[in-house]
Amino acid sequence: MRNFKLTIEYDGANFFGWQKQAGRRTVQGEIEKAISTMTDEEVTLEGSGRTDRGVHALGQVANFKMENPIPAKKIKGVLNNLLPADIRILKVEEVEISFHARFACKRKTYRYVVQVGGQRSALDCQFLAFFPYSVDLQKMTDAAKLLIGKHNFKGFCSADTNVTNFEREIFDISIKKVGKKFAFEVTGSGFLYNMVRIIVGTLLDVGRGMLTCEDVKKALDTGERKHAGKTMEACGLYLKKVEYC
Amino acid sequence: MRNFKLTIEYDGANFFGWQKQAGRRTVQGEIEKAISTMTDEEVTLEGSGRTDRGVHALGQVANFKMENPIPAKKIKGVLNNLLPADIRILKVEEVEISFHARFACKRKTYRYVVQVGGQRSALDCQFLAFFPYSVDLQKMTDAAKLLIGKHNFKGFCSADTNVTNFEREIFDISIKKVGKKFAFEVTGSGFLYNMVRIIVGTLLDVGRGMLTCEDVKKALDTGERKHAGKTMEACGLYLKKVEYC
Repeated sequence: MRNFKLTIEYDGANFFGWQKQAGRRTVQGEIEKAISTMTDEEVTLEGSGRTDRGVHALGQVANFKMENPIPAKKIKGVLNNLLPADIRILKVEEVEISFHARFACKRKTYRYVVQVGGQRSALDCQFLAFFPYSVDLQKMTDAAKLLIGKHNFKGFCSADTNVTNFEREIFDISIKKVGKKFAFEVTGSGFLYNMVRIIVGTLLDVGRGMLTCEDVKKALDTGERKHAGKTMEACGLYLKKVEYC
Repeated sequence: MRNFKLTIEYDGANFFGWQKQAGRRTVQGEIEKAISTMTDEEVTLEGSGRTDRGVHALGQVANFKMENPIPAKKIKGVLNNLLPADIRILKVEEVEISFHARFACKRKTYRYVVQVGGQRSALDCQFLAFFPYSVDLQKMTDAAKLLIGKHNFKGFCSADTNVTNFEREIFDISIKKVGKKFAFEVTGSGFLYNMVRIIVGTLLDVGRGMLTCEDVKKALDTGERKHAGKTMEACGLYLKKVEYC
């Protein structure tokens, strides 16, 4: 048996998210179908984690196992020919049989892009979130610092989750402004359901003066969702990078 | 009765084109619905022309008439609030009652963007066409010159048309290269069905060495579609500008 690691880019706009669901167009479903066509074996694709409907990926990672002896360097071309244009395989690597894209994951980086004020272009509406209020970058940067490190992030997680351990570690948050656009990059050990979208919503509310650093501390200390900001829309979110060492 | 000129931007990816069709999501249909909600009158929106399914607009123009006394400067905000995010009204002007967006149109400019070679990003697949062969910019520029002026463009029109007069005037074609991307801009008095997509397909085939300037002349002289190149995909096409004087 051989094991392959795929690095994958997708436009999430026309998928019901990553995870395979009967009768729905999903990223996992489309890639499994392409692999099965290529290899004529039944194959399961393990992603580093799910992404929601409308969320994009610049570097999602997944792995699958197969018997087929096709040379590793041919797989990328074959799969890209079989896949729809809104999924592209960026890289294929043959890896140790024990590698598992989810269990072995050490760090993930998400990017969130949002236009603050003005009028969002019709052509950006699936790729850029919108926030109608002006914000203070320094206030957001200060609040972001409070989130760095190991914390109980229950206050930054959607209620709709099965998770029982809410401890996660955030290694870094950067916020860059270019014109009316802000790009947030959040790197962590792993993320709870909607965690990045709630973090960005919270930081924007701090930037706008609706919330303060005290509220952010309260959300961390109490684990109560009500102290954090709103969940930002899916279209601004990109899974940028998944790291394994 | 008052007459209004709208300048409109849209992401064509999720529309069945401009023209209203029962049971289908179209740009004209969505805007007429928003206007009718605003004014509570039955309103017809006249576009400068149709765009096909998947074609975008940076500056489509249309007009509509209504009795409603709402101040002109409020209309843009009201309509953008009512419209889906993939249509944005850029400008609203109250114009003479005789203005008609189609009949009064003097010049249109289309932009066509295509990536030549390499791998197109999943995130570009609805906004950038793809051409797998390398092309020579000088050859394309030379061939483009043959199309400038008044010609019978029957050879550059899809068979699927009701038009009987194929004479059109092209004022300018510019081709710019940035990295692997080529942007074609074609300005003319008016365009036949699929004309810009066929012109770009023809110029790319010339650039790649599959067609020559002789073929382009033959397509112009004989009006036979077979001498021109293929019709490029809709996603690379943008209606950039519609001019009235």
